[in-house]
Amino acid sequence: MPLDRFSIIDSTLREGEQFSTATFSTSQKLEIAGLLDEFGVEMLELTSPCASPQSEADLRTIVNAGLKARILTHIRCNKEDARRAIDTGVHGLDIVMGTSPQLMQHSHGKTIPEIIDLATDVIRFVREQAPEMVIRFSTEDTFRSREADLLRVYLAVADLGMVNRLGVADTVGVALPAQVYNMVHQLVRLTGLDVEFHGHNDSGCAIANACAALEAGATHIDTTILGIGERNGITPLGGLIARLYTLDRSYVAKYNLRLLPELDRLIATICQIEIPFNNYITGASAFIHKAGIHAKAVLADPTTYEIISPDDFGLEREISIGHRLTGWNGIRQRARALGLTLDDNTLRAITQTVKQRADRQALSLSEVDALLREAAGS
Amino acid sequence: MPLDRFSIIDSTLREGEQFSTATFSTSQKLEIAGLLDEFGVEMLELTSPCASPQSEADLRTIVNAGLKARILTHIRCNKEDARRAIDTGVHGLDIVMGTSPQLMQHSHGKTIPEIIDLATDVIRFVREQAPEMVIRFSTEDTFRSREADLLRVYLAVADLGMVNRLGVADTVGVALPAQVYNMVHQLVRLTGLDVEFHGHNDSGCAIANACAALEAGATHIDTTILGIGERNGITPLGGLIARLYTLDRSYVAKYNLRLLPELDRLIATICQIEIPFNNYITGASAFIHKAGIHAKAVLADPTTYEIISPDDFGLEREISIGHRLTGWNGIRQRARALGLTLDDNTLRAITQTVKQRADRQALSLSEVDALLREAAGS
Repeated sequence: MPLDRFSIIDSTLREGEQFSTATFSTSQKLEIAGLLDEFGVEMLELTSPCASPQSEADLRTIVNAGLKARILTHIRCNKEDARRAIDTGVHGLDIVMGTSPQLMQHSHGKTIPEIIDLATDVIRFVREQAPEMVIRFSTEDTFRSREADLLRVYLAVADLGMVNRLGVADTVGVALPAQVYNMVHQLVRLTGLDVEFHGHNDSGCAIANACAALEAGATHIDTTILGIGERNGITPLGGLIARLYTLDRSYVAKYNLRLLPELDRLIATICQIEIPFNNYITGASAFIHKAGIHAKAVLADPTTYEIISPDDFGLEREISIGHRLTGWNGIRQRARALGLTLDDNTLRAITQTVKQRADRQALSLSEVDALLREAAGS
Repeated sequence: MPLDRFSIIDSTLREGEQFSTATFSTSQKLEIAGLLDEFGVEMLELTSPCASPQSEADLRTIVNAGLKARILTHIRCNKEDARRAIDTGVHGLDIVMGTSPQLMQHSHGKTIPEIIDLATDVIRFVREQAPEMVIRFSTEDTFRSREADLLRVYLAVADLGMVNRLGVADTVGVALPAQVYNMVHQLVRLTGLDVEFHGHNDSGCAIANACAALEAGATHIDTTILGIGERNGITPLGGLIARLYTLDRSYVAKYNLRLLPELDRLIATICQIEIPFNNYITGASAFIHKAGIHAKAVLADPTTYEIISPDDFGLEREISIGHRLTGWNGIRQRARALGLTLDDNTLRAITQTVKQRADRQALSLSEVDALLREAAGS
């Protein structure tokens, strides 16, 4: 199934604010929102105006900032939160209500019929107050909820004919891709509404689950820059891009991909964290090739061991040759790059020297170069 | 399907050595191998003895170190590599051969019939020289290979009756869980042999793919500590543990889980990298709860927003309360912890004060405590 009819809801300014070290100032929020808008995400989700006075003021500021992206806020399922959110002029309300036994007991204490009644009340209120508002209703902790409970809630909400989008949320990061596929597919089939997926990454499936949601017909995926959020976070924007790019580059051609490194650096700086060494696309090692067999093949054709072209993101690959796993093809290529002519036997001997010396300590590129220049008598 | 009959092949000392900043000394290798053995991984894969003189010496050292884990080495498909590996006394040989069009053209230049002939020769040679050797044959870049080519190679190799395990390798990190499931399931069904999965993480599916492999009947999963490896690495040991633990804690009860933080710290120190902020289980934020709604529920019952108990890994949760997203339940709980008696109206007023002050800058816990103590007149 082609995955080209989806929108990204970037929630760095809502879910991301729930990351332990994130406290965004107004100017930082404007910078983040502006860069995400330039990147091309279709929607931005911001913290509820009920969270704090500055949260409300910042929401108004960003609604009026003239961005192409639509501005959403994320609210609890009650009229007072809805009223305050509508008053800010946002384009969409993301309403959420826990449906798992755990959250029904400890978050709000309501039964399924009470949840349906409350959701009905709040959604009717929003639609009356703001006929053009884009309304999303999501269950929370979808994948620990009873399936029968979920269907009762979703079908009752859909039946109102007032909701634009249903949300499916792996709040605790427990879902498997097949479960996400099945739930999303069922909602698409039964309601015909847009479906959004929000997935935490506690057990490492947030990207695979987002992809499964799209394959099942989901229209919207929640991301944050670097994946920041509660606990270890959600589907990272760059990780989703990497996943879709490798399926078909055209799926992400609508985004300004060369801004991704700047987005990741911006959040790392603001949150005083490091971009993970193993981060998708922008991690320090993402395009480093080390083993001799890999280096040899990448020198002949980068697609042998690269499914993403670093150039598409304004980045460069590196072929690492000064270590014990090096091979003579990498050494030969380096000699050529330096303009040195050396026969194969000499190059093989230098390769063995590099391996032996690197057994004690890896060589820098200039140390490898010195060995090559010495052999060439230059 | 219960996932309790699997073994972990930790490849930190082979795939991990291919990570850009990894160069392990003999003593570091012994420390890593010893701690992995204590953790309980069933097998350790080490760099080929052909890589460098020290690689060969270290392999012999670890084979003779008296570990419970079986020691494997990873070799190219040729007799000379096999002969040198057998000579070290390893328990198993992991033989690999590229089968994708990309690798057939640029890595070894052989056709499928030539690959089958070579694999047959090498496997026969190993079985003659070392009747007790555990032989694994893996294709490389399995998921960009033609399915017909894969089946010809795997079925010919299995038909020799000399191989213990087949390997499936997502060498470039392109596979989706359903693809991994189908390929592994087919091999299990057609050959009855053990099946190993090795998956890179370029597009964020390495953990989901490893889990899909197990669901399909795979018996062995490759990991490295923190996931280090070529480019952005492979399935991380801790990530696989998190995934299986959340499906059923009993799947990972055989491992000494409280050693996981020490394993992750050890590799971070040796490789001079930071444990990613979003790392599974051991990342700095993995057990921090921030939003007021989350804090309230976690205070009542940690399983509301935690699918992994930090205590099982010798870690602690943190409920963060000095920020603009805080709620009065968290503030009330903190007052109780300090032994202060404050009525609900006072606690709600303090919560608003915290939110307003945190709008400018997040408060430290001692600043929140000072507000509570002041209100209690203590």
